[in-house]
Amino acid sequence: MKDYIKIHPWKVIENNFHPEFNRISESIFSLGNGHMGLRGNFEEKYSGDSLQGTYVGGVYYPDKTRVGWWKNGYPEYFAKVLNSTNWIGMCVEVDGEILDLNKGTIHSFQRILDMKEGHLSRTVIFEFPKGNKVLIESTRFVSMIYPEVGVLKYSITPLNFSGDIKIISYLDGDVINEDSNYEEKFWEEVDKESSSYEGHVTLKTKKLNFHLCTAMKYDVSLNKEKIYPSAKCSEKEKYIANEFSLSCNKNDTLTIYKYVAITSSRNHLIENLKDKAYRILNKAFEEGFDELLLKQINTWENIWAKSDIVIEGDDSSQQGIRFNIFQLYQTYTGEDHRLNIGPKGFTGEKYGGVTYWDTEAYCIPFYMSTCDKEIAKNLLIYRYDHLRKAKENARKLGFTKGALYPMVTMNGEECHNEWEITFEEIHRNGAIAYAIYNYVNYTGDKSYLEEYGFEVLVEISRFWEERVNFSQDKNAYVILGVTGPNEYENNVNNNWYTNRIAVWTLQYTLEVMDYLKTKDYNNYNKLISLLNLQDKEINKWKDIINHMYYPFDSKRNIFLQQDGFLDKNLSILAKDLCLNELPLNQHWSWDRILRSPYIKQADVLQGLYFLEHEYDLETIRKNFDFYEPLTVHESSLSPCVHSILASRLGYKDKAYELYLRTARLDLNDYNNDARDGCHITSMAGTWMSIVYGFAGMAVKNHTLVLNPYLPKQWESYSFNIIFRECPVKIQVNLGDVVITNKGINHIKVKLFNKEYLLPSEEKLVVTK
Amino acid sequence: MKDYIKIHPWKVIENNFHPEFNRISESIFSLGNGHMGLRGNFEEKYSGDSLQGTYVGGVYYPDKTRVGWWKNGYPEYFAKVLNSTNWIGMCVEVDGEILDLNKGTIHSFQRILDMKEGHLSRTVIFEFPKGNKVLIESTRFVSMIYPEVGVLKYSITPLNFSGDIKIISYLDGDVINEDSNYEEKFWEEVDKESSSYEGHVTLKTKKLNFHLCTAMKYDVSLNKEKIYPSAKCSEKEKYIANEFSLSCNKNDTLTIYKYVAITSSRNHLIENLKDKAYRILNKAFEEGFDELLLKQINTWENIWAKSDIVIEGDDSSQQGIRFNIFQLYQTYTGEDHRLNIGPKGFTGEKYGGVTYWDTEAYCIPFYMSTCDKEIAKNLLIYRYDHLRKAKENARKLGFTKGALYPMVTMNGEECHNEWEITFEEIHRNGAIAYAIYNYVNYTGDKSYLEEYGFEVLVEISRFWEERVNFSQDKNAYVILGVTGPNEYENNVNNNWYTNRIAVWTLQYTLEVMDYLKTKDYNNYNKLISLLNLQDKEINKWKDIINHMYYPFDSKRNIFLQQDGFLDKNLSILAKDLCLNELPLNQHWSWDRILRSPYIKQADVLQGLYFLEHEYDLETIRKNFDFYEPLTVHESSLSPCVHSILASRLGYKDKAYELYLRTARLDLNDYNNDARDGCHITSMAGTWMSIVYGFAGMAVKNHTLVLNPYLPKQWESYSFNIIFRECPVKIQVNLGDVVITNKGINHIKVKLFNKEYLLPSEEKLVVTK
Repeated sequence: MKDYIKIHPWKVIENNFHPEFNRISESIFSLGNGHMGLRGNFEEKYSGDSLQGTYVGGVYYPDKTRVGWWKNGYPEYFAKVLNSTNWIGMCVEVDGEILDLNKGTIHSFQRILDMKEGHLSRTVIFEFPKGNKVLIESTRFVSMIYPEVGVLKYSITPLNFSGDIKIISYLDGDVINEDSNYEEKFWEEVDKESSSYEGHVTLKTKKLNFHLCTAMKYDVSLNKEKIYPSAKCSEKEKYIANEFSLSCNKNDTLTIYKYVAITSSRNHLIENLKDKAYRILNKAFEEGFDELLLKQINTWENIWAKSDIVIEGDDSSQQGIRFNIFQLYQTYTGEDHRLNIGPKGFTGEKYGGVTYWDTEAYCIPFYMSTCDKEIAKNLLIYRYDHLRKAKENARKLGFTKGALYPMVTMNGEECHNEWEITFEEIHRNGAIAYAIYNYVNYTGDKSYLEEYGFEVLVEISRFWEERVNFSQDKNAYVILGVTGPNEYENNVNNNWYTNRIAVWTLQYTLEVMDYLKTKDYNNYNKLISLLNLQDKEINKWKDIINHMYYPFDSKRNIFLQQDGFLDKNLSILAKDLCLNELPLNQHWSWDRILRSPYIKQADVLQGLYFLEHEYDLETIRKNFDFYEPLTVHESSLSPCVHSILASRLGYKDKAYELYLRTARLDLNDYNNDARDGCHITSMAGTWMSIVYGFAGMAVKNHTLVLNPYLPKQWESYSFNIIFRECPVKIQVNLGDVVITNKGINHIKVKLFNKEYLLPSEEKLVVTK
Repeated sequence: MKDYIKIHPWKVIENNFHPEFNRISESIFSLGNGHMGLRGNFEEKYSGDSLQGTYVGGVYYPDKTRVGWWKNGYPEYFAKVLNSTNWIGMCVEVDGEILDLNKGTIHSFQRILDMKEGHLSRTVIFEFPKGNKVLIESTRFVSMIYPEVGVLKYSITPLNFSGDIKIISYLDGDVINEDSNYEEKFWEEVDKESSSYEGHVTLKTKKLNFHLCTAMKYDVSLNKEKIYPSAKCSEKEKYIANEFSLSCNKNDTLTIYKYVAITSSRNHLIENLKDKAYRILNKAFEEGFDELLLKQINTWENIWAKSDIVIEGDDSSQQGIRFNIFQLYQTYTGEDHRLNIGPKGFTGEKYGGVTYWDTEAYCIPFYMSTCDKEIAKNLLIYRYDHLRKAKENARKLGFTKGALYPMVTMNGEECHNEWEITFEEIHRNGAIAYAIYNYVNYTGDKSYLEEYGFEVLVEISRFWEERVNFSQDKNAYVILGVTGPNEYENNVNNNWYTNRIAVWTLQYTLEVMDYLKTKDYNNYNKLISLLNLQDKEINKWKDIINHMYYPFDSKRNIFLQQDGFLDKNLSILAKDLCLNELPLNQHWSWDRILRSPYIKQADVLQGLYFLEHEYDLETIRKNFDFYEPLTVHESSLSPCVHSILASRLGYKDKAYELYLRTARLDLNDYNNDARDGCHITSMAGTWMSIVYGFAGMAVKNHTLVLNPYLPKQWESYSFNIIFRECPVKIQVNLGDVVITNKGINHIKVKLFNKEYLLPSEEKLVVTK
C-alpha cells in the first residue's frame, strides 16, 4: 500500500515527483472519453521508467498466442489493446540540452487530475544539468464532446536565463506494446505529411487492417500574444514533427496550444480518414483551447449531476468514489455499442481483450442506475450479438449444443489461453444470464426477454445441461473441473458458486419461458420453434435443478467453495500472513497458492451476493464469518462484494475497511499492480459498495428498496440514481434519510421495511 | 496405427518410400552410440517433409522460457536438446539437376536399419526429372567403439546414361531447432577450414559456451578403385564443402567414404578441440570403412550377447523387443556418468531436458539387469550429484527443508514450465527414492545406502513431511494439489499413488536408518549429525505413515486415483470411444480430458506394480479390472506396466496385446507422435513386460524369483540377465523352463514357487 497521492475531494494530486512510482502515477493520471484515452505520460522526453500508452477503443491487434504447452481448443491469437500514435509529444531543448525530468533537478512538481472538470495539469520547476531553470505548465484533456479530439496547452517559462528555446511538436506512431508476445511491432505506415504548424500520420495494423489517422495543428503564444515562428518540418518512420526555435527573455512564457484529431477506420471510410481528421481538427482549432475546455467542464458537470456520490466528512472516501466514477465514465460512455469496458480501460495495455464477466457482474448495475437504460441494454445486446460465436466456442470445446461465452474477448471470439481459465472458468456464462435478470428486474423492461434475452438464456442453459454430469456415487448432478471466481483454486470439482449459478440459470430460463408463454402464446411458440427447444431438454433442466449437488459443511453450516476445501490447512487466517509475502501471487509459487485456503476473490460470497434474496441472513453470516477471514482480496473484484455483505450483516467497520480497499485500490496501490493500469471494472463495485452496501439498495417487485446506514466515519452521503425513468436522489444524514423523486412519475419505495408511494417531485424524509 | 514397416527379426525395413511418413521413418531409422546420434535423414538434399536432427549428448541450449502466463517459481529457461552440425551432407548433381527424392521418380527404395550390426543402409533407384536414372546406395553408422566418430559410405551408379556427376560433400552447422521458443538460432561460428578432401567447422552455443568441432575427411572410389578427382573448396556461414565432378560411364559406381569426428568442449579443452578432432578423424580414416564396420559389428555382437531377448515364432514381437533394446543402447551406454536417458534419445528434439522420472521408474531395471551394476549405480549417483539443486528447487517453491527433484532437467535445475506438472507432479520424488530401494534389492549393494542413498532419502522424506498437511475434516494427512503419473488429471487432491509413494518413502527411509544404525553405529551417528536429522522429524514421519489418508471405494474395493474420481461419468469405456477421437490429447480440449475418466498412464496400477509385494493378487485384480478399461495408454510409459500386471493376473491375451503396444509403439506409431522421435525411455518398459511380465521375474530376499509363462503366440523365448555378478540365461519353452547360471558363483533361484540353489555353470530344467 502506498499513500503519496494527496487527499482532495475533487482532485487527484501528486506533490513532488515520485519517479519510483511513475508507472503507477501514469495509470492514475490517465485521461479518456469513452472513445480513446492515454496514460499520464509526460509530454517531454522522459528517460526514466515509463509505460507509454495511447489507446483508441476497439482498435486492437490479434497477437499470435504464446503458450508453453499448446492445448486443443486454445485460440490462435490474443487480442491486444493497441498502443497507438503518441500525440502529446513535445520535445524541449535549451542550450543543447533536452528537457528530460530524469536528467536534471526538479525543484517543484505537481500534477493534478481535476475530476470535476475532466483535465490533467502539471506544474514543474526544472533545472537543466547546465543550470538553466524553467517552469513547465501543461494542461490537457480528451474531449468528452468531440470524441476524436485531444487538446494540450504546454508552456515553458525560463526562470533564470534568457536564450533560445527549441520546441519540437511531434506525432510518433513508432510505438510498441510492451506485452507483445514476440516483440513484434503492430503498426505500419500508410501515409504522413508535415507542413508548418500541422501534420498527420496514418498507420494501419499489420493484421485486421485497422487504419488510424492522427492529425495535429498547433499555435504558439509568447506571453499570451500569438506569434508565428518559422517552423521546420521533419519526418521519420511513422513520425512527423514541427520544430521551431524562439529567443526568450527570462520570465517570458512560451505557450503551445496543440490540437489533435484521431480518426479510425472503425468510424470512417479508409479513403476519407485523413480528410475527416483535418475537418474535425480544424473545427477544434477554430473553437480554441478555452472554448473546448469550457465544453469539457460542462459535459463533466452533466455527468456528475447524474452520477456523483457526495460524501461529507471523509475526503479520502470522497476522493476514492469520485476517482472510480470518473474513470468509469472516462472508459465507457455507452455511445458506441460495439465497445465494452476493458479491465484497464485506457490506462494500460495489460490483459488484452475488452470484455470480461466483469461487465455483467459489476459494471451493468452502475450504468443501469446512473444513466439511461439504453446503455445497459446495449451492453446486454453486445453479448446477444456474440451469441453465434459463443456457440462456435462451445462446439470447439466438444459440446454438441449450447453457448459458452469467452472469458476474454474483443469481437466475440475467445482470446484467452490458459486452460484452467479459458476452458474452466465457465461461471462467466452464469453472470451473463444473471445480468439479463438484473436488468429486467431493475428496469422492468421485460420486452428485452423476448427480443434478445430468452435466446441467450436458452443457449446458456443448454451449455449447462451438457456440462454437468450425473455422479452415480453422489446420486446427483455434479460439475467437475472448473475454476470459480476465486482463481486461487483451479480445476476443482463442484465449485458451489458455479453449481449454484448453473442451476439458477436453468431456473430463470424456465421462469422466463413461463412468462413468455403467458404473455403471448403465439409468439412464444414461434420462439420455441426457432430455437428448436425440445421437451426432453426442459425435462432434463428440471431434473438438474432438482438433483444438483452442492458441497456443504453440516458442521459449520456453510457452503463449500469446492469438494476438497475442508482438507486445507485452515489454521492460519489471512490477517496472520507475513506482510512480506503479500500479495501472495507475487510471492508464492502457484501450487502453494492453490493448496492454501486463501481466497483471491469472493466465491461462495459472490453467489450469496447475487442471490441474496434466496438466502436468510444467518446463512449469509455463517458463510461470511468463515470465508472473509480467509480472503486476501488480491482480485480487484473482491472487496466490494465483501463490503456489501458486511453492510448487510451490520459489520460496519469491515464494510468501511473494504470500501476503502475497493475505492482507493489504485490510489493506494493496494495490490502492487497499479503500474499496469487502473482496475476499471472493479470501480463499478466501489459504487455498489455504497449504493447496495451502505444504502442497502435493491429492487424487489418493482419497488425501490433502501436500508441505508451512515458509516461512522462520514457525516452524510448522497447519490442519484435513475429508477424507472425517474431521477431519484438519496441523501443519508446522521439523523434522517431523504429520498427525492425528481422524475415525472411516482415510484414505489420501501425504506427501512416500510412502503411508500413517492410522487413526482416529492421528498420522503424519514428520521432514524 | 501404421504398419508400413516390414517385419523382420533383426532388421527394420522400409520398402518403397513413404514420404507422408518420412518424419516417422527418420525417427525410427535414427542412429546413436550413447554419445551422439542422428535421425534417419537422407544424405542428399531433400525438399520434402523432414526434421533434420544431429545431436551430441549433453550439449544443450537454455532457451528462454515461453509461457502464456508467468507463475512464480517457473524457471527462466528450458534446456533444449540441440540440433548440431549436419555431417552426412552429400549433394549430388547430374546434368544441372540436384538429386532430391522429392523431385523426380523413385523406381525402388529400401532402407534397412540393421540392429544386429548397428548400421543404416539405403538403396534407391531414382530418375531425375530429365530422365537420368541412378542407383543410390548408402551405409552409415556412428561408431560404438570410437564414440566421436561417424562413418558414411555413399555410392552413385548411373543406370541409363554416361556423363558428369557432381558431388558436394559438406558439413553444415547452420541448423535450427524447430522447437526454438523464439525462432532463434542457437549456434555461432568460431572457426572453419576446408581443403582438398577434408575440412572442419567449429561452432559454439550463444549461451553456456559449448564448443563443438565437426571435422570430415573422405576418399573417392570409382568401381572400387581409389581415385583422386580435384576438389573445389567452398565456405558459407557455419558451413564448409568440398566439390568435385567426375565423368562416369553408365553402370560405373562412384563411391565416397566420408569419415567424421565430432569433439565437444564437454570432453576436451576448447583450445584443443580442432586438433583432437583431426587426430580422432585421421585414426578412423586410416582404419577405413571396412575395419570400422567390423568393429561396429563386434561391439554390437557383445551387447546382444548380454542383452538380447530371443523370441521364437513371432517375428513381430521379436522385431519389437530388439528395436527397443537397440535404441536403448544407442541412447545410453553408461560410459559417461554426466549423461542420462532423454525421452527421445538422439531421435528427435522434442521435450528438451534429458532426465525425467522415466530413468528411475523404467530404465534403471533394464540397465541394472543387462549390464554391470556400476551403470545403474551411475544413474543413481547422477541424482545424488543433483541433490543440492533439488534442495534449492524446494526452497524456490517455498519449502523450508527437503529436496524436490526437477520434473525435467539437464543439469539438476528444473527446466519445465507448466504449473500442473512442474510444481505438482511431485510423485517423481518418490520414484527417485524407489530406485534406490530397487537397486539395493536387486544388486544387494547396501554400501550405496550409506555412501549416497540415505542422504537422498532423508531430503526427499523431509520434502514429503512439509508437503502433506493434516486435514481436520478427515482426521488424517492429505496431499493436496498434485498431478499423478496420469497427467490426464491435474491438480487433484489425494492422488492415491502420490500419497502411497510418499508414505513408502518415509517407511523405507526409516528402514534404511535402522539398517545403518545396526550396521555401524558410529558411522550412523555421523550421518545423522551431518544431516542434522532430528527426533521430532522422525516422529512426524511416523505419524504421517500411521495417519495418511488413502482414497478408497469400499463398494468396489479399489483404491481411487483421487478424491473426486467416482464423480466422473464412468459409463463409457475406453474401447467404446470413437476411433476418430483418439488419441484424445490430439482431439479433445483439455478440460474435457480432465473431467473424463480416461487415464493416460497407469496411476494406481503404477503403485501396485512398484509395491506389488505389499498387495495380494485380489487387490491387484480388482484395481486392474476397474482401471484398465478406462486407460487409453496415451503415455508411452503406460502399456508396459499394465502388461506386467496382466501377466501377473493371468490375463494373457491382454498382456500380449499391451506388450505389442509397448514393443511396437514407434514401429507402428500407435500414438501418432513418432514423427517427433522415438519413445526411448518406455523401451525399457518393453523389456520389463517380458522379463517382469511374461517371465514373472522379481528379486526377494536375495533370491531370483521367476514365474514364467509362454504367450500362446510364441514358441519360446529366452533372455539374459546379470544377477549378483552372474550372467544367467532364462529360456522359456513350451514344455519347460531352463535356467542357466553362467557365472562363477551359485545363485538362489525360486522357480514356480520352489527354491533352488543353482551352482556356477549349471542348468536348471523344470518341466511344466
